[in-house]
Amino acid sequence: GQLFKVAVLPGDGIGPEVMAEALKVLDAVEKRYDVKFERTHANVGGAGIDLEGRALPETTVNICKAADAILFGSVGGPKWETLPPDEQPERGALLPLRKIFGLYANLRPAIIFPSLTSASSLKEEVIAGGFDILVIRELTGGIYFSQPKGIDGAGRDRVGVDTMRYSVPEIERIAHVAFQAAQKRGKKVCSIDKANVLSTSVLWREIVINIAKEYPDVELSHMYVDNAAMQLVRWPKQFDVILCENMFGDILSDEAAMLTGSLGMLPSASLAEGTFGMYEPSGGSAPDIAGQGIANPIAQILSAGMMLRYSFGMVEAADAIDNAVAKVLDQGYRTRDIYQEKAGEKLVNTKEIGDAIIANL
Amino acid sequence: GQLFKVAVLPGDGIGPEVMAEALKVLDAVEKRYDVKFERTHANVGGAGIDLEGRALPETTVNICKAADAILFGSVGGPKWETLPPDEQPERGALLPLRKIFGLYANLRPAIIFPSLTSASSLKEEVIAGGFDILVIRELTGGIYFSQPKGIDGAGRDRVGVDTMRYSVPEIERIAHVAFQAAQKRGKKVCSIDKANVLSTSVLWREIVINIAKEYPDVELSHMYVDNAAMQLVRWPKQFDVILCENMFGDILSDEAAMLTGSLGMLPSASLAEGTFGMYEPSGGSAPDIAGQGIANPIAQILSAGMMLRYSFGMVEAADAIDNAVAKVLDQGYRTRDIYQEKAGEKLVNTKEIGDAIIANL
Ligand SMILES: CC(C)[C@H](C(=O)O)[C@@H](O)C(=O)O
Ligand SMILES: CC(C)[C@H](C(=O)O)[C@@H](O)C(=O)O
Repeated sequence: GQLFKVAVLPGDGIGPEVMAEALKVLDAVEKRYDVKFERTHANVGGAGIDLEGRALPETTVNICKAADAILFGSVGGPKWETLPPDEQPERGALLPLRKIFGLYANLRPAIIFPSLTSASSLKEEVIAGGFDILVIRELTGGIYFSQPKGIDGAGRDRVGVDTMRYSVPEIERIAHVAFQAAQKRGKKVCSIDKANVLSTSVLWREIVINIAKEYPDVELSHMYVDNAAMQLVRWPKQFDVILCENMFGDILSDEAAMLTGSLGMLPSASLAEGTFGMYEPSGGSAPDIAGQGIANPIAQILSAGMMLRYSFGMVEAADAIDNAVAKVLDQGYRTRDIYQEKAGEKLVNTKEIGDAIIANL
Repeated sequence: GQLFKVAVLPGDGIGPEVMAEALKVLDAVEKRYDVKFERTHANVGGAGIDLEGRALPETTVNICKAADAILFGSVGGPKWETLPPDEQPERGALLPLRKIFGLYANLRPAIIFPSLTSASSLKEEVIAGGFDILVIRELTGGIYFSQPKGIDGAGRDRVGVDTMRYSVPEIERIAHVAFQAAQKRGKKVCSIDKANVLSTSVLWREIVINIAKEYPDVELSHMYVDNAAMQLVRWPKQFDVILCENMFGDILSDEAAMLTGSLGMLPSASLAEGTFGMYEPSGGSAPDIAGQGIANPIAQILSAGMMLRYSFGMVEAADAIDNAVAKVLDQGYRTRDIYQEKAGEKLVNTKEIGDAIIANL
C-alpha cells in the first residue's frame, strides 16, 4: 500500500475540534483503501506563539517540509490581535507558508448545497437549485509579495508604498490551473482584472487570452473586478471558474463564500507545482464557539478530501468523502450553524456529524 | 440672485435622455429659488471621440474649468470597446477629469428605498426597512495614479507593475470628509483596509485613528476589505459611512450599489478641495435601452441634487429634490427597470417620471 506523510496543523479556536473529525475520516479511508497516512502534529498560529514563540515555528516548517501535504485547521483569535501585523497568527503563519512552499494556486469552491439554499442571504429565486463556483486565486505574487513595500519618511511626510507585480510565467501557470479545472467542470473561465486601470491587468488579460488557445473546449470571458463584485450578488449562477490575481481573489472569494451562507462548509486548497499542497477550511477559527464541541467540521473534512484528490491522486476516495457529506446533509444532519429548525433536520454536534459522515463513506 | 455655472456633459447611451430630465429639474429649481444655472454643454466619452477625436476633448476641459461644477451623464458603449484602454470613453474621460480637477473625494450613497426592497437580490428579512450606506472613496491616489506603472521587458520576460502609494495628507483629507459626513448621518465610520498585508493600509489605519480624535461624536471601526465584501452581503444595515482607498472603494461601492437592486437610482459626487465637484449617476450608459425614452432618470436627477448640496450650498433645494423623488416612488411611479407589476404601480417613461418629480418639488 501507499504511504503519505501529512503535516497536521490544527491551530486555534475550533481548529483542533474540527481537525479531530477530519483525522477520523482519514482513519476510515485507511480502512477502506490500501493506504496509510503518517501524521505529524505541529503548532501554528496562536498555538505556535504561545508554545514556541511565533506563529510559524521553525519545527513546524521542518515538519511541513518532510510531509507530502499540509492539513491546516484555522488560526487567530482575540488573544493575539494586539500583536504587530507581521506577528499575528493569520498573517504570520499563512503568508510565510505560501511563500516557503510556493503555494501559488489557491482553489476556493463556493458551493451552495440545494438543501442549504435558505442559509444564504440571497433570495430563493436567485439561487434556486444552488450554484457551484470555483475561485482560482494566484497566491504568491501581486501586491502581497512584491517589492518595494513599506512606509518611508517621518511624521506627516511619511508615504506608504505597495507594489503589484506580475511576470508572464506567473500568469501562465495560474491560467493553466484555471483552464484545467474548468475542463473538469462547467468549461467556462471568467478572468477578473482591472485592465482599464492596471498595467498588471493588461498583461494578465493578454496572457490569459494566449493560454486559452491551448484549451479550445473552455469558454473564456473577462470581467472587471468592480463588475464581478456586482455580478456575484446579482446572479452567481453565471459563473463556473473565476480566475483572479491575489488581491482580487482575496476579496471575491470571500464574497462568493458568504453568498453560500455556510462558511463552515467550504474547504480550500493551496497548491504548489508538483503535488504538494496545503488544505484548509475557508472559514475562520470562530473563537466564540471554540471548545464547545458544536463547530461544523465539514469544511475541514472536505479539505482533507481535497488533499486526497490533489496531492495524493486518490480521486475515488475524495469523491466518496464529497458524497458522504452530501448524503449526511440530505439525511438532515445539521450542526448549529446550519440548523434552521425545519422538519426533518437533526441538530447534532461536531463529533456526531463526523461519525455520520464516516458511516456514509 | 446667485448665478452658478454648470458644465453639462451628457455623454453616451442613456446619458442625454436622463440628463434632459435633470436639466428640467434645474429649470424648476430656478423658478422656485432665487438662482440661475448657466449651462454649457460639452462632449465627453464616445461622443467626444466621435465628434472631437478623443474621450475628453480640450474644449470640454476648458468648459469644465470655467464652471462651478460638472454635471456628468454616463459614457461608454460597444462602439468604442475595441479602442486601447487609455482611449476608451470611461477610462479616457473619467481618470483625467479626476486628476485635472483634483476630485479626491468620491461619495457614493447606496440607499435602498423601503418601497423598492424587492428589487434587491438580498432576502426581504436581510433588508427589511431598507438600508442607507454612504461609501466614501479616495479618488485621486493609490494604485490608480501612482508611479511606476507599466509593462517592462519583451516577450515572456515582460513584467507588469502597478504602484499603490498614499501620503499622510492624502489620507487625512479623505478621512475628514468621512467623519464630517458621518456627523450629519449615523455617526459611524467603518474604515476599510488590508492592514495585515499592505503597508499603505498600515499607514491608512494609523492616520484614520488620529483624525478620528477630532470627531469624538463619531464611532470608528476598522474592517479588512475581504471581510467587508462578506459583511455587505451578510448584513448591510451594520454600515453607515464606509471609508475606502481608491481600489477598495471601486469594488465595494459597486457591490453595495448592486445590493440595493436599483442602480438607476444611485447618484454620486466627486469633490475637489473647495466647492468644485463632478456629479454623475452610479450606473452605466445602458446602450441596450438608449434612445427609447424608457431609462430611469432618477440617478441623474439626484446627482443634480447632490450638486446643489455640495457645490452650491443649496441644502433646502437639494432636500426638496430628494423628497420629491421619494414621494414619486411612494405614489407608485416606476420606470421599467424598477417596475414589478404590483398593485399601485404606474409604469412610466423617462419624461413622465421627470415631470412627476417636478410636480412634487
Ligand atoms: C490572513 C490574510 C493574510 C489572508 C489573505 O489575505 O490572503 C486571508 O484573508 C486569506 O484569504 O487567506
Ligand atoms: C471606468 C473606471 C476607470 C472607473 C474606476 O475604476 O474608477 C469606474 O469603474 C468607476 O468606478 O468610476
